[in-house]
Amino acid sequence: MSNQEMQNFIYKRFLSTPKREAFYYEGKSYTFETVYHEAYRWAGILSAKGVKQSQFVGVLLKNNLQSVFVLFALQLLGVKAVILNSRLTSKEIIWQLQDSGSVFFITEDAFKKVRADVEMEVSSLRLLVKEEIMDDDFEEPMIVSEVQLDHICTIMYTSGTTGHPKGVMQTYGNHLWSAVGSSLNLGLRDDDVWLCAVPLFHISGFSILMRGLIYGHKIVLLDSFDADKTITLIREQKVTIMSAVSTMLKKMVERLQQQPLHDSFRCMLLGGGPASRALLEDSVSCGIPVYQTYGMTETSSQIVTLSPEDSIKKLGSAGKALFPSQVKICRETGEVAEANESGEIFVKGPNVTSGYLGKDEATAEKIQQGWLATGDIGLLDEDGFLYVLDRRSDLIISGGENVYPAEVEGIVAAHPAVDDTGVIGMKDSTWGEVPVAFVVIKKDAEVSHKELEEYCQEKLAKYKIPKRFFIVDQIPRNAAKKILRRELRKMVQAF
Amino acid sequence: MSNQEMQNFIYKRFLSTPKREAFYYEGKSYTFETVYHEAYRWAGILSAKGVKQSQFVGVLLKNNLQSVFVLFALQLLGVKAVILNSRLTSKEIIWQLQDSGSVFFITEDAFKKVRADVEMEVSSLRLLVKEEIMDDDFEEPMIVSEVQLDHICTIMYTSGTTGHPKGVMQTYGNHLWSAVGSSLNLGLRDDDVWLCAVPLFHISGFSILMRGLIYGHKIVLLDSFDADKTITLIREQKVTIMSAVSTMLKKMVERLQQQPLHDSFRCMLLGGGPASRALLEDSVSCGIPVYQTYGMTETSSQIVTLSPEDSIKKLGSAGKALFPSQVKICRETGEVAEANESGEIFVKGPNVTSGYLGKDEATAEKIQQGWLATGDIGLLDEDGFLYVLDRRSDLIISGGENVYPAEVEGIVAAHPAVDDTGVIGMKDSTWGEVPVAFVVIKKDAEVSHKELEEYCQEKLAKYKIPKRFFIVDQIPRNAAKKILRRELRKMVQAF
Repeated sequence: MSNQEMQNFIYKRFLSTPKREAFYYEGKSYTFETVYHEAYRWAGILSAKGVKQSQFVGVLLKNNLQSVFVLFALQLLGVKAVILNSRLTSKEIIWQLQDSGSVFFITEDAFKKVRADVEMEVSSLRLLVKEEIMDDDFEEPMIVSEVQLDHICTIMYTSGTTGHPKGVMQTYGNHLWSAVGSSLNLGLRDDDVWLCAVPLFHISGFSILMRGLIYGHKIVLLDSFDADKTITLIREQKVTIMSAVSTMLKKMVERLQQQPLHDSFRCMLLGGGPASRALLEDSVSCGIPVYQTYGMTETSSQIVTLSPEDSIKKLGSAGKALFPSQVKICRETGEVAEANESGEIFVKGPNVTSGYLGKDEATAEKIQQGWLATGDIGLLDEDGFLYVLDRRSDLIISGGENVYPAEVEGIVAAHPAVDDTGVIGMKDSTWGEVPVAFVVIKKDAEVSHKELEEYCQEKLAKYKIPKRFFIVDQIPRNAAKKILRRELRKMVQAF
Repeated sequence: MSNQEMQNFIYKRFLSTPKREAFYYEGKSYTFETVYHEAYRWAGILSAKGVKQSQFVGVLLKNNLQSVFVLFALQLLGVKAVILNSRLTSKEIIWQLQDSGSVFFITEDAFKKVRADVEMEVSSLRLLVKEEIMDDDFEEPMIVSEVQLDHICTIMYTSGTTGHPKGVMQTYGNHLWSAVGSSLNLGLRDDDVWLCAVPLFHISGFSILMRGLIYGHKIVLLDSFDADKTITLIREQKVTIMSAVSTMLKKMVERLQQQPLHDSFRCMLLGGGPASRALLEDSVSCGIPVYQTYGMTETSSQIVTLSPEDSIKKLGSAGKALFPSQVKICRETGEVAEANESGEIFVKGPNVTSGYLGKDEATAEKIQQGWLATGDIGLLDEDGFLYVLDRRSDLIISGGENVYPAEVEGIVAAHPAVDDTGVIGMKDSTWGEVPVAFVVIKKDAEVSHKELEEYCQEKLAKYKIPKRFFIVDQIPRNAAKKILRRELRKMVQAF
C-alpha cells in the first residue's frame, strides 16, 4: 500500500533542511547535512562488514553522538536495531541477543566485560566495536530510500519489573505517530530545542532522536544526567523542551530556586509516574511548566499527557490520550468501566506496538483488536483525565481495601525531609497485607517515624498509611526509574 | 489493521479540548463542545431522513457555520460527502451527483435554481434543504466512533480546466496526513488562529476545517473574501495564519500599505500559482510572511511549500515537499530528470488520493506505484526546490521554443498599471503559435500596448513576449482562481 511508504526519515530531513542545526554535543553543533553524511559513512562501514537490510542487530552503546550516527546508519540500511539497556548484566544481554536472533552485536570500548562475555558465550554472533571499526573500509551502502511504515525500526525489551523480558517491536509508523501525537499536543515551534539527558537505549531518549528528524529541530545531547550541567546547557543553548523523570526534576528544582529558567523554556515532559504537588509547585516557581505523561515501550513513548494548566487542578493525573490515540479502563469482566471506577488501563493507537517479537501468544493475549492491555491500574475521571493508580502486580489488598503504592508514595515523597520513597505490601496476620514504606532522607535533614506517620495521617485513609518506615540509602530503580518492588520485597526480609 | 483506526476526529477533538474556541463566525465564538453537539444534532436530523453510513451524499452549501455543522455531521455518520462547487451550473452539478451515485442532495435556500433543476431532472435523488429541515425530528444517530484512515471522507471533482471532471477520493488518512505534513512545516502554536476566506467546497477551505479539528485551533470563518473585513478580523481575532491566492493577497496589500499587520500574524499560505516579486516585497513590508505552495485536490491541499526565508532567494519556486511527501520530475520517457531539467511533476505521499471514483482506468493511468502524474510541468533546482512552470495542456510552443504562460503572466502582472492578466497561445502562420496576453488595467491607471511590450522586453526572451495585448475587464477564473484558458481562447476569436 503506497500510503504506507515514506522516504527514510534521515534522508528526508537532510533533503528538507540540510543547513539546520541537528545536534549540539560537547560544545559543538552539527547540521542535518553533517549528521546524514556521518550516518551514511557509518552505513558504508557496516555494509563492508556484512550488515544488511532486514537483519536484527544488537546495539549496546553509550549516549554520545557517534552512537546516534550508528543508530541512524542502521535505519539507512533498513536494519532492525535491537537496542540494549546498558545497565543489564551480560547474562541478560546475551539472552536478548539470542531471543531476537541478532546477527551482529555492535558495542563500544566502555563495555569491555559484556563484550568479553558475549564473545565467549555466543561464538556465532559477529562482534563490532565502534572504536575499532570507525576508520575501517567503506563500501557504497545499499540505502533504503523509502521505509514502509509497518516495518520494524527498533526492538526494545520491556523493563522486566514484572515477568520475563519481551522484545517490543517498534515500527517506523509507531515512531512517526508518536512524534506526531506529541506535536499535536505540545505544539511545534521553529525555535524548539530538545534536551536529551535520558538514555538513548530507552524509548524516552530514542523518541527524542526520532522527533528531531521528524520535526527538524536541534537536540542537545548529554552523556548522562547532571543537574548543574543540564541547567547550564538549557540556558546556553536556549532549550525549550526536556524529557525527565521526577528524580531529575527534583534535583534541578533544588538548584534553580534562586534563578528561574528563561521564558522560552516551555515544557518539561515528565514520565515515570506522577509528581507530587510540592514538586509541581516548586517547578512552577522555577519557571518550569511540567507536562506529566503516561507511556511505555509498547506505546513508543508518551500516549497520555497532562498540560500544565491542568497539573494542579488534576493533581496526580497523567492527562488525556494524544490525538491519534485512545485510552479506556476495563473491569476484569472486560466491560468498560464507569467514570471514576478503577480497572485495567487499555491503550490503542498508531503508536502502539503490533506485538512482541516471536511471541505470538503473548501478543494475542496482550493486544486485542488493537487494544493493548497495559497491566496497569487506573481510572478516568468525569472529564476524561487518566489517573494511573498502580502496576497491577503491585496492588496491595489490606483488609479487603485496595491500596495503590503509587498513591502512598506520592504523599510520603511530599514530606520536606524525604528524598525518595518506595512502598510495597508486607504480609500481616490481621489484615492479610499492610503497606510499608522505604524512605531515603535528604542530606542534613532529620525526621522520625512518628513524624512521618503523623504527616500521612492528615492525607491518607487509615488503611493506606504505611505501618512501617524503613530508612534506606537508596530506592532500587531500573533504568526507566521505575521502582523495583521485588528488590524492596527482598529488603523487607532483611529488616 | 488496527493502526488504521482512529477516533472520529470531531468526537476526539471534543473529548480532548471541549472548552477551547473552535470557530469565530459573524461576531460569535463557538467551542469544540458546541460544535460537536451541533454536529451531533444535525447527524440526528439527517439520520431521521434516512442518511446512513457509507452512502454518497451530495452537498451544495455556502460558507457558513451551519454548513460546517452539516459537513461534520456527515463525518459522524460515516457518510461520503460529495462536495459540490457552488459556482457550477445545474448541469454540471447534476452530472457530478449522478457520477458519484449520490443518494441525497443537501443544499440550502440560496441555491433555488439549482435545487429546482435537480428536482426536475433527477427524481430519484432525495433533496434536503438546510433551512427546511433544521428544526425537524431528531433520531438518535448511529455515530461512527472510529474511522478507518483508508475510508473515503470526501469526494471533490477536479476543477475541469482540462478534460472531463473526475471525482477525487479523499480519505480520512489523506486529510490527516495533509494536516500533519503542514504542521511539521509551519509549526503549531497554541495561540494559532486560522482565517478561512476561501470556499469550503474547495480543498483549500475544507482542509482548514480538518486542520481545526486535528490541531484544535480556532477558525475565523468568512462567508466570502472581502479585503477590508478580512484585515479587520485578522486584527480583532489575532489571526496568525490565513490561506489565500495572489489576487486576494494583492487586494490586502493595497489596503495595508499604511498599517502593517500585527507581529503574531505569522503565515500567509499562498496557493494557485507563484506570486510576483513585487507582490512578495510588498507583502514583506506589510508584515505578511508569504508561504508559497503547490497542491491540488488530489493531494488534499499543499504538498510543496516555500518558507518566507527562501521566498526572494528562490523567487517563483513553490518550495520543497512536505515531510511525509515526495516530488520528482520525469522526462516523457519516464526517467527521472536531472536538476534544473523541466518535465512532468509527480507527487507521492499519504496525503495523495488513492484515485478517482469509479474510474479505475484513469486512476491506473495517473497513479503508478503511489506516484501521481500531476500533468503539470516543472523542475527541481540543484537545492531541490520545485518550480512549477505550467499546466502541461497550456504549454505554448513557438518556433520550437517552449513558452510557459505562467512565467509570462508573472512578468506582465508585475507592471504597476496591471491588475490581472492571463496568457495563452494564438495560432501564427510563421511560428506555429505565439503568446498573447489578456490584461486588466487598474482603476485610474493607464498604459499603452507599447509600454507593456517595452516592459516585457527587459525581462523576457523575445519569443516569450506577448505578440498582442488585449485589454479586458476581467480574466475568467474558476472557483480555485485558476485561469480558464479555454475561455481566453474563445475571447481571442472575438478580438
